[in-house]
Amino acid sequence: MENPTQRKKTKPVFFGGVQVGGDAPVVVQSMTCTDTRNVAATVVQIKQLKEAGCEIVRVAVPDEDAARALSEIKTHIDIPIIADIHFNYRLALDAIMYGVEGIRVNPGNIAREKMLEVVAAAKAHGTVIRIGVNAGSLEKDLLKKYGGPTASALVESAINSLAFVQDAGHEAIKLSVKSSDVSTMVEAYRELSRKTDYPLHVGVTEAGSILNAAIKSSIGIGILLYEGIGDTIRVSITGDPVSEIGVAFGILRALGIRKVGPDIIACPTCGRCEIDLFALTREVEEKVAGMKEYLKIALMGCVVNGPGEAAEADVGIAGGRGYGLLFKKGQVIKKVKEEEFTQTLLHEIHSMVAERKGK
Amino acid sequence: MENPTQRKKTKPVFFGGVQVGGDAPVVVQSMTCTDTRNVAATVVQIKQLKEAGCEIVRVAVPDEDAARALSEIKTHIDIPIIADIHFNYRLALDAIMYGVEGIRVNPGNIAREKMLEVVAAAKAHGTVIRIGVNAGSLEKDLLKKYGGPTASALVESAINSLAFVQDAGHEAIKLSVKSSDVSTMVEAYRELSRKTDYPLHVGVTEAGSILNAAIKSSIGIGILLYEGIGDTIRVSITGDPVSEIGVAFGILRALGIRKVGPDIIACPTCGRCEIDLFALTREVEEKVAGMKEYLKIALMGCVVNGPGEAAEADVGIAGGRGYGLLFKKGQVIKKVKEEEFTQTLLHEIHSMVAERKGK
Repeated sequence: MENPTQRKKTKPVFFGGVQVGGDAPVVVQSMTCTDTRNVAATVVQIKQLKEAGCEIVRVAVPDEDAARALSEIKTHIDIPIIADIHFNYRLALDAIMYGVEGIRVNPGNIAREKMLEVVAAAKAHGTVIRIGVNAGSLEKDLLKKYGGPTASALVESAINSLAFVQDAGHEAIKLSVKSSDVSTMVEAYRELSRKTDYPLHVGVTEAGSILNAAIKSSIGIGILLYEGIGDTIRVSITGDPVSEIGVAFGILRALGIRKVGPDIIACPTCGRCEIDLFALTREVEEKVAGMKEYLKIALMGCVVNGPGEAAEADVGIAGGRGYGLLFKKGQVIKKVKEEEFTQTLLHEIHSMVAERKGK
Repeated sequence: MENPTQRKKTKPVFFGGVQVGGDAPVVVQSMTCTDTRNVAATVVQIKQLKEAGCEIVRVAVPDEDAARALSEIKTHIDIPIIADIHFNYRLALDAIMYGVEGIRVNPGNIAREKMLEVVAAAKAHGTVIRIGVNAGSLEKDLLKKYGGPTASALVESAINSLAFVQDAGHEAIKLSVKSSDVSTMVEAYRELSRKTDYPLHVGVTEAGSILNAAIKSSIGIGILLYEGIGDTIRVSITGDPVSEIGVAFGILRALGIRKVGPDIIACPTCGRCEIDLFALTREVEEKVAGMKEYLKIALMGCVVNGPGEAAEADVGIAGGRGYGLLFKKGQVIKKVKEEEFTQTLLHEIHSMVAERKGK
């Protein structure tokens, strides 16, 4: 049996105090969607991301003003920042000078000879380089060689740039080979993981709005994590980036890799259900939103699987007709009237969390 | 390289005209959450499910009135129906008599000796039996033997019941071994798939409300489908079952297993983006909702990956400042003003769909 909590061992890199790879937990990251030159808006978004659990943030650096803004942004935040650079290697030099913990460069749009200077600067400042290959911006010669942005084309791009950065004497590297196509992305990361021990940043790119992004990212990132591949993940969502963090931890929690936040087991209901389980689930979800503690909460509509699931959870309700049985750690505690479900569950949840924290 | 479109070959079974297993496509199913005795409400929901793409529907049969309602429900609908039976084997006999295409029985709560009669009736009527094991209602002796609802415990339950039904002379069988725990469910189906060639109904049970259910189901069902395991899938969502169909086809589409509905590639935007991509994505998604035709639509914010992704799509926009390039089948067609993005894209989408249908 595979054990998704057993990770492939990679070389650790450090974004300030945040380790990626080695024996570190899988790190959750996101990217701002504000105009980077708008320092206030960017800082607010980074703080929201951090509050939601984001551990590293990436910020676009499209021009010199954006690069300059980084130095001020950094004074207001306390998570590591990665400058996202395309086309212009001078912006990478600026970002390194302004003290970012990492830069992301795209081999598809920065010329090799310009990169020598970037690597030297990164080495001098201890800046991590992410070699970020993307199917949408692959080198033209590789597109031609492979007939399109195939998994092997993505991997060849990453490996070529990796060798170049290594030869230039820098070792603090992580790699990504993203595609918007789930199968391509899975195959690319598998191949890359076989070929290198550098840490991998895993994600499905341009995955769309939240529900579609959750589906694609959960399949792609999920398959890889289940095989022990992946040191840091980013869920790309067209929408508020804060929502990326919830989905990322949802994936990690579902695989038992990082137990952060409540795990709500709730039945879909059917013609057997005699309580309003949809309302109960909505209420409980709202009330525990943002909770960082891991707790398994079962909300079950009837006696078929209710008692079994509730008994496996930390706390649960198995519904009957207008009442339910409250379970705690496998034991029936009491019979509860339907109108008191939410209140009773929240009381138990809070007391369990308080008890844990007290220990 | 694995090819998720290559499925493990299983024995086909037939729910009326709908084949599950063998060389059939992966069938999408759902379950009503209405009171089955309320024929009107149940029929309305089944019609909504069918409209959304549901191919088989399951209906709870908690009592004799519900069983009786099946015969009338069946006169109003034209997709196969599976009666979901627990505890009372007589309800299975009733449902078979009322002409359902399949029954789901749970080995955890129907005694073996009662099942002989059910199997004989199913055989006489050509009714498919789904042996539906669930971690929340496993046989007590297996829970004791394995120390809990482990993957092997679920599989042993399914295999025992399978042997029983086979020995009783019935062959139209499908199997499920659901757990609310993703890793347990993946391991159980893998083990079951190694041990039998009967078709498998795959799902994560009690997966919660839509976003969490999408995450858990996409990982669990996704890992298995990627390995060629699974003949029919159900995504369990605490909420309107119609939403289950969208997520199910989202999973199948992401893996290229069934190309149904539009695949929207959209970037998460960043500090580079100079168009309102969130609004564009929302508008396009709304307008193509319910479309059954497969079309890859790329909505991209900038020139980094925009042209590359748009070129790989059937139709796409790569944004600039207040305008965008319209791509069609890899070619730039024209420059479009931002306020005309949605209208222009929809025009292209509809003409491409019309063209295909015309052929």
